[in-house]
Amino acid sequence: MDVYISGVGMTKFGRSKDSLEMMMANAATLALKDAQLERVDAIYIGVMNVEEFVGDSNFATLLADTIGLTGIPSTRVETASSTGAGAFETAFYAVASGHMKNVLVLAGEKMTHLPTAKTTRILSEVIDRSERRYGATMPALAAMIAQKYAQKYKLSIPKLEEILSKIAIKNHYNGFLNPYAQFRKVITKEDYLKSQMVSYPLRLYDCAPITDGASAILITSQPTSVKIAGIGHATDTSAVRHRASFTSFNSTKEAAQKAYTMAQLNPSDIQFAEVHDAFTLFEIIGTEDLGFSPPGSGWKALEEGTTHLHGKLPINPSGGLKSRGHPVGASGLAQLVEIVYQLRGEAGEGRQLERAEIGLTQSIGGLGNNNFVTILERSDRKRGMIEGWRLDYHPEIKVSKKITTPPPPEGVGILETFTTLYSTPEGFRSPLTLGFVKTQGGEIVMACNPDYKSPKDLKMGKTVFLKTKEGLYVFEKRTLWSRLTSWIKGPRKSQKV
Amino acid sequence: MDVYISGVGMTKFGRSKDSLEMMMANAATLALKDAQLERVDAIYIGVMNVEEFVGDSNFATLLADTIGLTGIPSTRVETASSTGAGAFETAFYAVASGHMKNVLVLAGEKMTHLPTAKTTRILSEVIDRSERRYGATMPALAAMIAQKYAQKYKLSIPKLEEILSKIAIKNHYNGFLNPYAQFRKVITKEDYLKSQMVSYPLRLYDCAPITDGASAILITSQPTSVKIAGIGHATDTSAVRHRASFTSFNSTKEAAQKAYTMAQLNPSDIQFAEVHDAFTLFEIIGTEDLGFSPPGSGWKALEEGTTHLHGKLPINPSGGLKSRGHPVGASGLAQLVEIVYQLRGEAGEGRQLERAEIGLTQSIGGLGNNNFVTILERSDRKRGMIEGWRLDYHPEIKVSKKITTPPPPEGVGILETFTTLYSTPEGFRSPLTLGFVKTQGGEIVMACNPDYKSPKDLKMGKTVFLKTKEGLYVFEKRTLWSRLTSWIKGPRKSQKV
Repeated sequence: MDVYISGVGMTKFGRSKDSLEMMMANAATLALKDAQLERVDAIYIGVMNVEEFVGDSNFATLLADTIGLTGIPSTRVETASSTGAGAFETAFYAVASGHMKNVLVLAGEKMTHLPTAKTTRILSEVIDRSERRYGATMPALAAMIAQKYAQKYKLSIPKLEEILSKIAIKNHYNGFLNPYAQFRKVITKEDYLKSQMVSYPLRLYDCAPITDGASAILITSQPTSVKIAGIGHATDTSAVRHRASFTSFNSTKEAAQKAYTMAQLNPSDIQFAEVHDAFTLFEIIGTEDLGFSPPGSGWKALEEGTTHLHGKLPINPSGGLKSRGHPVGASGLAQLVEIVYQLRGEAGEGRQLERAEIGLTQSIGGLGNNNFVTILERSDRKRGMIEGWRLDYHPEIKVSKKITTPPPPEGVGILETFTTLYSTPEGFRSPLTLGFVKTQGGEIVMACNPDYKSPKDLKMGKTVFLKTKEGLYVFEKRTLWSRLTSWIKGPRKSQKV
Repeated sequence: MDVYISGVGMTKFGRSKDSLEMMMANAATLALKDAQLERVDAIYIGVMNVEEFVGDSNFATLLADTIGLTGIPSTRVETASSTGAGAFETAFYAVASGHMKNVLVLAGEKMTHLPTAKTTRILSEVIDRSERRYGATMPALAAMIAQKYAQKYKLSIPKLEEILSKIAIKNHYNGFLNPYAQFRKVITKEDYLKSQMVSYPLRLYDCAPITDGASAILITSQPTSVKIAGIGHATDTSAVRHRASFTSFNSTKEAAQKAYTMAQLNPSDIQFAEVHDAFTLFEIIGTEDLGFSPPGSGWKALEEGTTHLHGKLPINPSGGLKSRGHPVGASGLAQLVEIVYQLRGEAGEGRQLERAEIGLTQSIGGLGNNNFVTILERSDRKRGMIEGWRLDYHPEIKVSKKITTPPPPEGVGILETFTTLYSTPEGFRSPLTLGFVKTQGGEIVMACNPDYKSPKDLKMGKTVFLKTKEGLYVFEKRTLWSRLTSWIKGPRKSQKV
């Protein structure tokens, strides 16, 4: 059964004085009005961590009651930072089953009212416990991935900075034109370079902000102007270090393959996309994983202007998570709202794309391990050659390896990647240097480094000493000095405040 | 499209040393083995509050990875204490849509490792903020409902105690026979009466325990011996005091009506049921709401032996939440596992029912505001007269009224119901007397009472004084003494520790 979109709505993203349920009710009201509906058969609520951000449980019920739909079935759905896309997928199946005609999908998060260290700690809970206990945050892991990407594709740090700044500049420009965006300001490379280092080499302008906001979509079995063409969903290892590749996400690739197959479309058919740029580089990795650019060359499409607002394949015309903002539960659904605005020609002057018949969203849950790809299409688009359609997208899905034999407590290893984290979660001192170290047995372990405050002292691919102290791995540069002092100093864990 | 059950599994409920993910992995392994499956198309995870009980987020991903299904789409679903039933419903639509063939539903909760006051506080977050801020807990609200039930149906407190003790005794007997149950002991009326008062008039033996456990079900589009015949889901007002009735749950009645309609069955067709007895009286209210007994007479069916293990309509052959235990996220799914065991004739000696072709579960989310009714049927059951089928179940759904004009800060009101809570959440002193007071404007407000430690000093239907202190309503008996002292004493809120 075909499934369509009959209404959309969202709040302006940013800092809001409204409660989470009021923001979500406002988005719901807009979507219901857009669809000219007063009742629905069910509600799917996407909130990532309402328990800790707001202190509520049973939120699906509260929402149904708040928006005046008391009695209507209401279910909360959560897939970490892709929650909005997860709620949409779940609602899609409910309508596709034929058991429901009109379903409201409602997603939101309230985050700005808490201290940053607390928000960082809550957001870090999406990270596997074995990596989180070192103080690893989302920016820290993204930074380690960025380092690895630069190394693999032979980009110097200045070149990497140039690429990352261009993503931030592009997305801020798009956000400047978007009335729903949190940041409506144009930035320059100087602004980028001046911005605070969050986790080396990622700066504040590489990271999506902390945001309040809500988005809503009504989906229906009745034909409308926008059709849901394809949905794909996949997971990956909980721990990042267990992945066979650090420079692409299996979960995006598998989700994309499913979505293209369901839609009977290829990457070359996609006209524009919203890609989960929680960290600038993730936009580049996303365009590669989606089959828009070959691995390692997504940044070239950016530099050539292909992904710019009026390029051949605009990426994040909304401003993306970077500039529109990132209320974690809402973003996956807000991306879809943007696609609908574009498909309907309602994106507004300056931002409306000329070619807007097929758009795609990619949403990342956690550190790339619960991802969605969703394709929307104008219902009046003429399709040819469906019978002869073939999927030309066959990405390499790398099989992750978990080695279950315990690594030795001491020894030498190779520093695979590292970061120095300046914005640490509650309970950890700043700065904090973290790395992935490959042991002699071939396992990659997370480790912290007690000594080096400047990331320039460390180099990927070099041999380091690995030891365990207080149940944590500690790595040190292999110098005589480190050998002498390592028996005296404690590991980073002892610096917990 | 018809949807079937191909495998079930659960852990023994109780205190477990295993982590939540290990318990859930164990349940998943049993269900996969039962279904003779190694892969599935998707996983739906039911956990109610993994964020606060365990400190994890992104749990759907962790689970897929833990059970060796890395890469498989995994979505977390939550509807408060009916979460297991909510995950099942969500998975049902995914299979019914035709997009998926085999889906794993996996539900669990880990609760026993925290101090009781903290667990109580976390569980209380399902309660509407406006009622929770007084220190209201689930047992407190259930106790206020029990008082109202006794008043409405003219049951003396000793008679109410007799009825409640019989439910506890019956369910403990059933649990005694169930190898998966937390409590495998028979209790007597003396045990019941000796058990600690939790919230007057409810004792420890009226309340489901704090439990660790997990349950799993595989659902499929391939015909098997057990078919999903009907599913219904409905919500109700977030705040209990906004309901038109305190002695039945609209959400159960609406969910039941939908489930019977989908299944083309009537209450009289149901042969046995698992009913959400988080509090003993809820089993009685449940059997009334489901159409098994007229309102106010569910306890007679109990006294006549109808709901006993080998009665005409056995209720909670598993032992129910009371005796099998209540890991909040898992219970809704564990009820369905029990139905499958019975339908397949695998419930074991003593507990296996003779008539087990159609079973029903009712699961309550929050304080009766996110409820599910699910009906399972043996696929080989002969059905007659479907064409002439008519729904003979038309319960009275009472429209809730919220009065939005603010009630006066001081005045007289009627004490609608009350309880004295002995097991208070973190931050509130014990004992704590709470009540619903109907103001002269007709609105019902939650209020606390600073004076009376014995619930026998208060009476429902009597006039009380209502005032506001420190933003909370306080009610006091209307005596000269109370008038004199009310200007001196502070409200209960000032007794926060």
